[in-house]
Amino acid sequence: MQFHHNGYVSGDPRIQPAAGTGIDRPAELPDDVDVLIVGAGPAGMVAAAQLAQFPGITTRIIDRRDGRLEIGQADGIQARSVETFQAFGFADRITAEAYRITEMAFWKPDPENPSRILRAARAIDDEHGVSEFPHLLVNQARVLDYFAEWMRNSPTRMTPDYGWDFTGLEVTDDPDYPVHVTVTRSSDVSRREPRTIRAKYVVGGDGARSRVREAIGCTLDGDQANHAWGVMDVLAVTDFPDIRMKCAIQSAAGSILLIPREGGHLFRMYVDLGEVEEGREKKVRATTIEQVIAKANEILHPYVLDVKDVAWNSVYEVGHRLTSRFDDVLPEAVGIQTPRVFIAGDACHTHSAKAGQGMNVSMQDGWNIGWKLGHVLEGRSPEALLSTYSAERQVIAQNLIDFDKEWSTLMATKPEDLPDPKYLEEFYVRTAEFPAGFMTEYAPSMLVGENIHQELASGYPVGKRFRSAVVRRVCDGNDVQLGHLATADGRWRIYVFAADAPDSRARLATFADWLESSPDSPLAATPADADPDAWFDVKVIYPKLHTDVDITTVPPVFRPRVGKHRLFDDEKVFAIEPTDDIFTQRGIDRGGVVVVVRPDHYVSHVLPLSATDELAAFFRPLLRTAQVKAS
Amino acid sequence: MQFHHNGYVSGDPRIQPAAGTGIDRPAELPDDVDVLIVGAGPAGMVAAAQLAQFPGITTRIIDRRDGRLEIGQADGIQARSVETFQAFGFADRITAEAYRITEMAFWKPDPENPSRILRAARAIDDEHGVSEFPHLLVNQARVLDYFAEWMRNSPTRMTPDYGWDFTGLEVTDDPDYPVHVTVTRSSDVSRREPRTIRAKYVVGGDGARSRVREAIGCTLDGDQANHAWGVMDVLAVTDFPDIRMKCAIQSAAGSILLIPREGGHLFRMYVDLGEVEEGREKKVRATTIEQVIAKANEILHPYVLDVKDVAWNSVYEVGHRLTSRFDDVLPEAVGIQTPRVFIAGDACHTHSAKAGQGMNVSMQDGWNIGWKLGHVLEGRSPEALLSTYSAERQVIAQNLIDFDKEWSTLMATKPEDLPDPKYLEEFYVRTAEFPAGFMTEYAPSMLVGENIHQELASGYPVGKRFRSAVVRRVCDGNDVQLGHLATADGRWRIYVFAADAPDSRARLATFADWLESSPDSPLAATPADADPDAWFDVKVIYPKLHTDVDITTVPPVFRPRVGKHRLFDDEKVFAIEPTDDIFTQRGIDRGGVVVVVRPDHYVSHVLPLSATDELAAFFRPLLRTAQVKAS
Repeated sequence: MQFHHNGYVSGDPRIQPAAGTGIDRPAELPDDVDVLIVGAGPAGMVAAAQLAQFPGITTRIIDRRDGRLEIGQADGIQARSVETFQAFGFADRITAEAYRITEMAFWKPDPENPSRILRAARAIDDEHGVSEFPHLLVNQARVLDYFAEWMRNSPTRMTPDYGWDFTGLEVTDDPDYPVHVTVTRSSDVSRREPRTIRAKYVVGGDGARSRVREAIGCTLDGDQANHAWGVMDVLAVTDFPDIRMKCAIQSAAGSILLIPREGGHLFRMYVDLGEVEEGREKKVRATTIEQVIAKANEILHPYVLDVKDVAWNSVYEVGHRLTSRFDDVLPEAVGIQTPRVFIAGDACHTHSAKAGQGMNVSMQDGWNIGWKLGHVLEGRSPEALLSTYSAERQVIAQNLIDFDKEWSTLMATKPEDLPDPKYLEEFYVRTAEFPAGFMTEYAPSMLVGENIHQELASGYPVGKRFRSAVVRRVCDGNDVQLGHLATADGRWRIYVFAADAPDSRARLATFADWLESSPDSPLAATPADADPDAWFDVKVIYPKLHTDVDITTVPPVFRPRVGKHRLFDDEKVFAIEPTDDIFTQRGIDRGGVVVVVRPDHYVSHVLPLSATDELAAFFRPLLRTAQVKAS
Repeated sequence: MQFHHNGYVSGDPRIQPAAGTGIDRPAELPDDVDVLIVGAGPAGMVAAAQLAQFPGITTRIIDRRDGRLEIGQADGIQARSVETFQAFGFADRITAEAYRITEMAFWKPDPENPSRILRAARAIDDEHGVSEFPHLLVNQARVLDYFAEWMRNSPTRMTPDYGWDFTGLEVTDDPDYPVHVTVTRSSDVSRREPRTIRAKYVVGGDGARSRVREAIGCTLDGDQANHAWGVMDVLAVTDFPDIRMKCAIQSAAGSILLIPREGGHLFRMYVDLGEVEEGREKKVRATTIEQVIAKANEILHPYVLDVKDVAWNSVYEVGHRLTSRFDDVLPEAVGIQTPRVFIAGDACHTHSAKAGQGMNVSMQDGWNIGWKLGHVLEGRSPEALLSTYSAERQVIAQNLIDFDKEWSTLMATKPEDLPDPKYLEEFYVRTAEFPAGFMTEYAPSMLVGENIHQELASGYPVGKRFRSAVVRRVCDGNDVQLGHLATADGRWRIYVFAADAPDSRARLATFADWLESSPDSPLAATPADADPDAWFDVKVIYPKLHTDVDITTVPPVFRPRVGKHRLFDDEKVFAIEPTDDIFTQRGIDRGGVVVVVRPDHYVSHVLPLSATDELAAFFRPLLRTAQVKAS
């Protein structure tokens, strides 16, 4: 964490100085905004939290609720989301209060007495260590609280505008604020006059019944519901020994997915209520909590569940539905027109809760659109960047729905109908990387290079998220997770892995000089009055011990002069952690490699140190200033 | 972290429900209080933070400042203090914003050209891993902020009462509130009427010029100042390569202790200003910041320090002074009279800042008196407990002063006058455990047993702090640091290490039954309307894999029924972490061992499972209720 560089900071360094639109931020929702986000759920809040870092942009987020969410339905937090929380400054804190999944138990009918269940298997969660972050369970209300805190502490001092209903929008030819949105007070009846808010862009994170989606003519398409589950968050006294373990319980009486929750006592149960035949939907939806508890006791036999308190419960049917596009550009206009309205999260994809995916995918939707809007509105990037949002996220949603269909069907299949008695646990272990959030792999686009140099850094697949590793900071000998330094500040990252060859020093110096001073370098786009690392955070990693790197000989681009005193930033120069060499771990070529990473952590490019032309060409269409310069 | 057990908690679980004196806490300083703490520095704030956990007790802490400390002088945080922060809920957060010391560099005159300095050695900080916590540097203002947050979130909702000057006190024979304290408004002249606050106990954490100390007739005795140092917290541009490393720099021109600070840019320098001959004190104290900077440049030659901003600076002379007692009981009355007034921190001990000890020792003073006052005022323990404070802490202060004298003298000694060129760095490495805070070893007393069974747990020396280790929680397979579960809630901890012997199950059951239900058990003192673990937090650790422990067969004392629903607390049952077996690491006897730990983390006793009589005898004088029962 860096601070004090412009003078002594006495208070909490996490509270950034107010700047731009945060200095005199109006408490009331203004008439004109740059971005209007509809819905303060996971997708909307992440988009807002990202945009809160751009002081020049007026972003407002409205929600029909009167205040913060008190209790939400989602609770599964995959490791990729915890990585994301790290970027937004709260991974450690939410981990400390969450339930951490370490293994999953599989209970089945006792072969000798099928009226009883017994523990048939245990599977280690994330056995192969796909991330240094854990897999958590915690109520979504707390996730939203932490994003709200980040927004509030950002330069823009953002807070959600509660109590507003979205009623419609129109994309007009207004040259300044083309999207005209109608909103009304959601609860204060006396003030229910419709208001028009003019926005440059609108993001609809307004859930499965999204009215923003409706306004841009998208629909959710997919299968109809056919299997019902009773879900309850409860406190109970029980003799079931695995009540604090995630369990898939399959008995002759049906199945349960047991999800322990934060705080040491609460747990969630998804109780199978069986197939919903046509005409029986209404009856299923009327299932009482007492009936769900009775059913759970039947399934758990011989164990007994004595429920003492019900925090929340519901009955739902699984449906898998998806929109074909995530923005307002019709298929025939793609490539011609750039979007003005986006939808994200449940507005785009609905599916079962069983794989614990919904909130996670929604948050990545929000992050993806958030930084792109920031770059376009700040003038860093052309509007074409915004078309990549729908292109990237629609595919991810399709993959999610395919996976969830398979998993939720399996969960509801009787053990005797599975291809193999161990099929369920084997599927769980085999596919673990998907629900952990690490199978996202964006296809080549203006944002993702062709992976023609992939062999130079096999551990950083182009299009997948940049996976952290421990390195040692040269200036102070501290071991740090390289990836954790990539906070959600909207900057690109350029990681330069120095060569370990006879001419390594010259090779690095040549690249560093080009990066610092060539008019073709992406850094040339950085505004002259900003710190040299304001848009591109450039770091160097040497394949040496930290005691073998002389920091005074490191090329200046890796030690930028920052702040009003133009102090050296010495915290961008790294060496290996000797017991866990990042070069070996990530398969980095010893000839030197450049890894370009997007503000949302995805690897954009892997290049040799000599490929300055390719690097310049990659960034040219992404940078407005460079474009102007080039023309 | 446990919550939700009395029903769903929607907000931040770190904010405990208000209770007792926290429900209608008066904003204004009341006339009568249980404990009045004078001075909101490290000692006073820790005492207050600990007492904030006792809802039945009215504690107020006054300070002459108008508000929070903006910038303090102390910055060294030893690992023992970070352990303490962990107990008060903020170790991770303060670590994230602090500078972390990993090694120390020693710079000396270049033998080939003594007008230049060169790096002669590096020493790893805490090479032998005396704690899982780091050694940090961060301004004391932030430490106080975090303790204030803990107080505010505690059931008593405590906040400091700023703007009050202590002017005197008298210990009277008032049967209810014997200590009559006079205070006045420190800044608001119009309201400077003296007020009398009546208190049961007073803690003076009012610094080196303590008026509370004066009021109880104590004095600081010791040597006079004789060596002067200029100290400055600055931002600078420099070519000195180790500017982000802790360094001892010795040159022909003098010596510097360089302390990098939080935030990546700020650092502190202690610059040697030489011996202060008689009559020259005034001149030395008038040394300007420009002169200190010039001197620093001379010492650093050939490196140059271009100071851009001075956050804080001062000139001071080292003095080593100590009081002979930490309370108001005169030597002749010890054992007859119990104390009413205590002093803590700098009020008791002053010394150089060089070893980075002051704030750390002060905080342990505060914790020591804090929980003892809590237990006595709540009626758990007799007043005799309070006499152990001065007895325990005076010795620690003496040790500190002895150590600091040696270290600060060494720092000011010219290299050629040292017994050996490597003497300084070797001393630093050899004595590392002392400044890390782990050499505190309380002598046997009513609080610390005789270590006659020490061989049963060689890794838990009686009188030293309970050192954490990783164990695996049985109920959910999570690896946790056993010691980190000991938060500053004022409870005793009883760790029961189960036996690994043919009769282990019976042996454990016999002990557990006694602990749960014998009238001689310390648990018998727990109030009937409280949770069974309200006073004693009892945990069991099995010498097995977690998959080999059947939680349903664990004795009930280790799975207490808690809260209004009497839910099982399943989080007190542990197994080994297979790669790091706690039994091996801490030398635990396989016949089963009981380790008793105080609320401030110090080991009180090590006993075999069969020693129920000794355990009962140890607690009898410490527990009021038990005493009453026994009579």
